[in-house]
Amino acid sequence: MARLEETLKQIQPLNKDIMDRAQQKIDLLSKPLGSLGYLENLCVQLAGIYESVSFNMEKKTVVAFAGDHGVYEEGVAADPQWITKAQIPNFASGICAVGTLAKYMKANVIAVDVGVNCEEKLEGVLDYKIRKGTSNIHKGPAMSREEAVKSIEIGIEVATKAIDEGSRVLAIGEMGIANTTPSSAIISVFANCDPKEVTGRGAGLTPEKVGHKANIIREAIALNTPNQEDAIDVLMKVGGFEIGAMAGAILGAAAYRVPVILDGFISYAAALLAKKLHEEAASYMIASHYSAEPGTVKALELLGLKAILHLDMRLGEGSGGILLFPLLDTANYLYENMATRAASKC
Amino acid sequence: MARLEETLKQIQPLNKDIMDRAQQKIDLLSKPLGSLGYLENLCVQLAGIYESVSFNMEKKTVVAFAGDHGVYEEGVAADPQWITKAQIPNFASGICAVGTLAKYMKANVIAVDVGVNCEEKLEGVLDYKIRKGTSNIHKGPAMSREEAVKSIEIGIEVATKAIDEGSRVLAIGEMGIANTTPSSAIISVFANCDPKEVTGRGAGLTPEKVGHKANIIREAIALNTPNQEDAIDVLMKVGGFEIGAMAGAILGAAAYRVPVILDGFISYAAALLAKKLHEEAASYMIASHYSAEPGTVKALELLGLKAILHLDMRLGEGSGGILLFPLLDTANYLYENMATRAASKC
Repeated sequence: MARLEETLKQIQPLNKDIMDRAQQKIDLLSKPLGSLGYLENLCVQLAGIYESVSFNMEKKTVVAFAGDHGVYEEGVAADPQWITKAQIPNFASGICAVGTLAKYMKANVIAVDVGVNCEEKLEGVLDYKIRKGTSNIHKGPAMSREEAVKSIEIGIEVATKAIDEGSRVLAIGEMGIANTTPSSAIISVFANCDPKEVTGRGAGLTPEKVGHKANIIREAIALNTPNQEDAIDVLMKVGGFEIGAMAGAILGAAAYRVPVILDGFISYAAALLAKKLHEEAASYMIASHYSAEPGTVKALELLGLKAILHLDMRLGEGSGGILLFPLLDTANYLYENMATRAASKC
Repeated sequence: MARLEETLKQIQPLNKDIMDRAQQKIDLLSKPLGSLGYLENLCVQLAGIYESVSFNMEKKTVVAFAGDHGVYEEGVAADPQWITKAQIPNFASGICAVGTLAKYMKANVIAVDVGVNCEEKLEGVLDYKIRKGTSNIHKGPAMSREEAVKSIEIGIEVATKAIDEGSRVLAIGEMGIANTTPSSAIISVFANCDPKEVTGRGAGLTPEKVGHKANIIREAIALNTPNQEDAIDVLMKVGGFEIGAMAGAILGAAAYRVPVILDGFISYAAALLAKKLHEEAASYMIASHYSAEPGTVKALELLGLKAILHLDMRLGEGSGGILLFPLLDTANYLYENMATRAASKC
């Protein structure tokens, strides 16, 4: 708990003076005021995060956490559970989507086991296993309060280590068969809405099974009564180890003043937990893509974020978040290199 | 007219067999079916355009057309008209937004004068000037039917020359103070709606002036009675030289089986003209960004396209379209390099 409390204490608001100066710099560029839209906001946000009008974003890292879910046994996922264990080593070796993209972009991927359902050590994956998967939320809480805090603190540790080693941008990713179920549960708790409004087909459920999934979530919430004012209570009762770790990575990034790029639906749930733990954490977030899951609107609304890429993706891993890396560099190049009105004679 | 007719005859549908094979290739990759969303559609579309399951997109070019507008005198623009003349040379020299981005991406920009209000030759700009700006659509047609065809044929010529010289992807851009006015007029004609529904602030009009702009457009349409079944009639009566040239560039790209990336609002108007001239032209289009102008929804709906980037940009130039270049390369890399389910053991 000490690590989490310390981290929360470290999180500060963005530097408004620097943000004003960044906006002034943008307003001198040879274009109508505000016409670069969200690219401008992005550069201003980054300046406020880094506390510097110009900034270096060279080293970028995806921190991806893997865990399994007891609620899998309720038939809420389309894929077999062993896929979690089989796929997470592919993150580091670069043969799954996020791994392939990371190779292309010369970015790093750190894959972390926080709760995969297997005995063996997974190749290329950091071993922070808490337990071989959460308990079934349809029968009781997903984890103990201590485990919930531990999952968050693992995320903090992994993120801050990556930053210590030079990463200037973090993106969060995950692997965990059935993890849209706890994510929908978390979002439904924070949005005060019926689970069916924020439950979708995940990686590929049939439409009939989506109704069943929403019922399981509704019953899990009724049974566990998570307190929406207490993020750790929500995480322990209806969350997941990798979701807690992602929330921790966000808090670690915010504490160390590094921007953190969200991926899709599961990352929104983690982001809501992080924001509940510290309101200012949201200032460090950048929403990459607009997930195909139906809870996306509500989640992004609660986070106060707008997603840039509309690609109807529903793959997870961090595959949407990493797609934003080139756009960040492009925005930064434009911000640094476009002519001023004076220089362009316009 | 011969050039236009020839080009229209050359346009063929995408190759469905190759598209099926591209989709089969994607479906073997180590991910849930369809989970890469629009990235998958994009690769399938590109395969169908190039008639090849694998394709090379190395050389990319922005073709940008500049023209002035007689309707400028009605007070429909926030900026002075001389900005068109001053800014278009910056496209090639790389100091405006699209020029800066092109330098960063090692892409080419071809800037073309089709109707800028100046006597002098503009440095670095191809001289295809039809006339020093259109006539005021609030007083009569923008141009003659011959000029309309000429503007389209210039676009065809510039695009096909770029393709002959090796460009494998084209993006269209423009420069023309006041050109959201003819664009809104064109979109309102094709959408059968009142101009106020599709008229916005352009590069920076005040809210009060937006109402005035919509009135001017409504009166121009009432005066000129463009026939929505005849794209050339719409272009000559309420269009612009650079809009016609952009439509021509789209047709040229489609005829030569090269994908053409739209930019924002003005490019939607050009795309609607091109689609009316040949329905299959739309199969070659890729919508890059979702313009901040209010007519965006209707225009994209009529085109049957979905924009990928949601950045609230309203700069023009081709600055939104060129932002898609890195994403195309990324999608193609993933498509070619991601492991199959068999290889990843998932």
